[in-house]
Amino acid sequence: MAKLNDNFRQMESYNTFNTVSEKINDYKKIYPSVELLDLGVGDVTRPIIKSVIKSMENAVEELSKEETFKGYGAPHGYSFLKEAIIKHEYKMFSQDEIYISSGTKTDITNILELFARDSKICVFNPMYPIYNEVCKLNGLNIHVEDASEEHNFVPQIPHKKYDIIYLCSPCNPTGVALSKEQLTNFVNYAKEYNAIILYDNVYENFITSNNVPKSIYEIEDAKYVAIEFRSFSKRISFSGVRCSYYVIPNTLQLDKLKGNINELWKKRVILKFNGADYIAQKGAASSYTQDAKKEISENISYYLTNAKMLKEALEELNFIVYGGVDSPYLWVKTKNNLSSWQYFYFLLEELNIIVIPGVIFGSGGENYIRISALGNKKTISKSIKKLRAYYAKKED
Amino acid sequence: MAKLNDNFRQMESYNTFNTVSEKINDYKKIYPSVELLDLGVGDVTRPIIKSVIKSMENAVEELSKEETFKGYGAPHGYSFLKEAIIKHEYKMFSQDEIYISSGTKTDITNILELFARDSKICVFNPMYPIYNEVCKLNGLNIHVEDASEEHNFVPQIPHKKYDIIYLCSPCNPTGVALSKEQLTNFVNYAKEYNAIILYDNVYENFITSNNVPKSIYEIEDAKYVAIEFRSFSKRISFSGVRCSYYVIPNTLQLDKLKGNINELWKKRVILKFNGADYIAQKGAASSYTQDAKKEISENISYYLTNAKMLKEALEELNFIVYGGVDSPYLWVKTKNNLSSWQYFYFLLEELNIIVIPGVIFGSGGENYIRISALGNKKTISKSIKKLRAYYAKKED
Repeated sequence: MAKLNDNFRQMESYNTFNTVSEKINDYKKIYPSVELLDLGVGDVTRPIIKSVIKSMENAVEELSKEETFKGYGAPHGYSFLKEAIIKHEYKMFSQDEIYISSGTKTDITNILELFARDSKICVFNPMYPIYNEVCKLNGLNIHVEDASEEHNFVPQIPHKKYDIIYLCSPCNPTGVALSKEQLTNFVNYAKEYNAIILYDNVYENFITSNNVPKSIYEIEDAKYVAIEFRSFSKRISFSGVRCSYYVIPNTLQLDKLKGNINELWKKRVILKFNGADYIAQKGAASSYTQDAKKEISENISYYLTNAKMLKEALEELNFIVYGGVDSPYLWVKTKNNLSSWQYFYFLLEELNIIVIPGVIFGSGGENYIRISALGNKKTISKSIKKLRAYYAKKED
Repeated sequence: MAKLNDNFRQMESYNTFNTVSEKINDYKKIYPSVELLDLGVGDVTRPIIKSVIKSMENAVEELSKEETFKGYGAPHGYSFLKEAIIKHEYKMFSQDEIYISSGTKTDITNILELFARDSKICVFNPMYPIYNEVCKLNGLNIHVEDASEEHNFVPQIPHKKYDIIYLCSPCNPTGVALSKEQLTNFVNYAKEYNAIILYDNVYENFITSNNVPKSIYEIEDAKYVAIEFRSFSKRISFSGVRCSYYVIPNTLQLDKLKGNINELWKKRVILKFNGADYIAQKGAASSYTQDAKKEISENISYYLTNAKMLKEALEELNFIVYGGVDSPYLWVKTKNNLSSWQYFYFLLEELNIIVIPGVIFGSGGENYIRISALGNKKTISKSIKKLRAYYAKKED
């Protein structure tokens, strides 16, 4: 008799983003005419830049003609895209070490299959909840380490030995980015214990601080211990189009493996995946031209200016604010010791502003909320005005 | 210390399609100027039809403008596409029961996560090798049952109890499609033992025989025991664009589950997937208009006419041929008791024709080859001419 995977039952208690959407939808049902200002959205809102659109249009046209039609591509990605990525981002790697895919959320959890099932896996609290939840769903050996307020939300080097460590920098939700020194400490830890770092680097385009590495591979010897994940979602507004990539260095140190890790992983990819969309790959490849880079930098500036406006306004109102410098996210302490959910409801009901309760990213996120600067400028200005009006009145 | 998943080592012996590509590439390196006729390709060659292209162009344009831009969609698919699928293919199901995804190979192996890890899984021999290989890679409890020549390559009802059964009809590689009676026997087996059938139905567009169901849900009570997988790859030449779908009926009988299977599976999808490409979903939805249906039927006829030409020619030359009626694949016995690989090399080296050795689909495929009618008509005509010339000479 077919039986359900018992781990699925745990999911009933999962506090995912969907829980937040449900609460908002409940509110909308009761007050359908209230205009809500969405600072919760963890998704880009700028349209896809012109040069990428042009390249996608050409790709669609190719698919319409017998002579230029493309069916299945290589499951690990087209060479033209890998070549562009290597030239502009990863000069030290070969095509063999790069994988093109359809989304980091899938990539960074699929990669667990590469490792022994009893691997000791470390995640931090607070952090992007998906790593933890997928590990639990797969019945893996997961442990939570500290990245709490006490440490300014910087993940702390664990005192225990782990096999695999999830790191996200710049971090979703806190917006905190690891400095060169902090990241070096993690690489050294991994070298010492032969651990592998799964480095979620999808917000790298937002990094502005000089001492924050844009890639973990800027750290010496990281190529022995880290798998880095990146995406086109934020870079070129591809969250609806789907294109991501990751690097498995040939030099990665895994026991018993003698340099054939990419050969093995490639076989796994061939077994389970038929490649990313051709149109997406064409679009992504065109994002490295000078024109595209200029357009991308304008979009990133747009979001970072939003973040700056929000940060300045909130600090003026005496909020404690993390992030917003190397990240589109601001991580903001509630007032009057309100819980994340209490403050979420207050903002929703009193000011009609949507944010994400920090506690859904782990208990270490309690008393915090995540505010996103990825919305449009108008929404952000209106929200600032409302916050100012409310807190000015209170302080009178 | 991070350790490799031991199951990965097994993959070194996997006899996948890639092994075949490697042999062909080796040949091409030695004889770069020889024109090879590719009857191996398991991929469409007709370009994407006009009405779908138009809809994809519109979708690209939408993504270029702020007012119509789309970011993340629902991980389980857009309602507009689910609605079209339900209206035209699955009237008995609700949107909750339909999942839009990016490829059946991924879907039909991911679904294993839904079930207990010690489930007894049945695959047939010969059959599409991916099911078996992914199960082994995940260390699952897999068993192989008979679908050999002795039974005209029809999968036989097992004598043992299984929890999960993989069925592919029309079958890749044999082209054999299960009749209503045969499929009813499987549904009855599943009902008796509370087993779940994972029904790989990606070739349904090629079905022409009256007694072959287009969907397993045409069989009474299948909605209690079957998950059906379909794809837009063959239907609208989307193998490079990526869009697939599957049905998990709310009525599926899984122990301990009280009607919430889709709620649980939806959470898993949300955890691990961010949805299929918007452009692909728009294109797929437009494939149900009258114009599109006409164009699709022309393409399917094109391939089936190829298949008919091949079948008639081969039978004239006294080959034993299966498939080619409800399927773009012909399953052909070698001459003179040659092994699959011997005959593969003979065709490659003597006639410069590429086919797939049947044995890569399991030992039951030995002495057979798979010939595909998905290539273009010219290639197929040339191949037939060469085969006729060779065997006519031999019989003189």
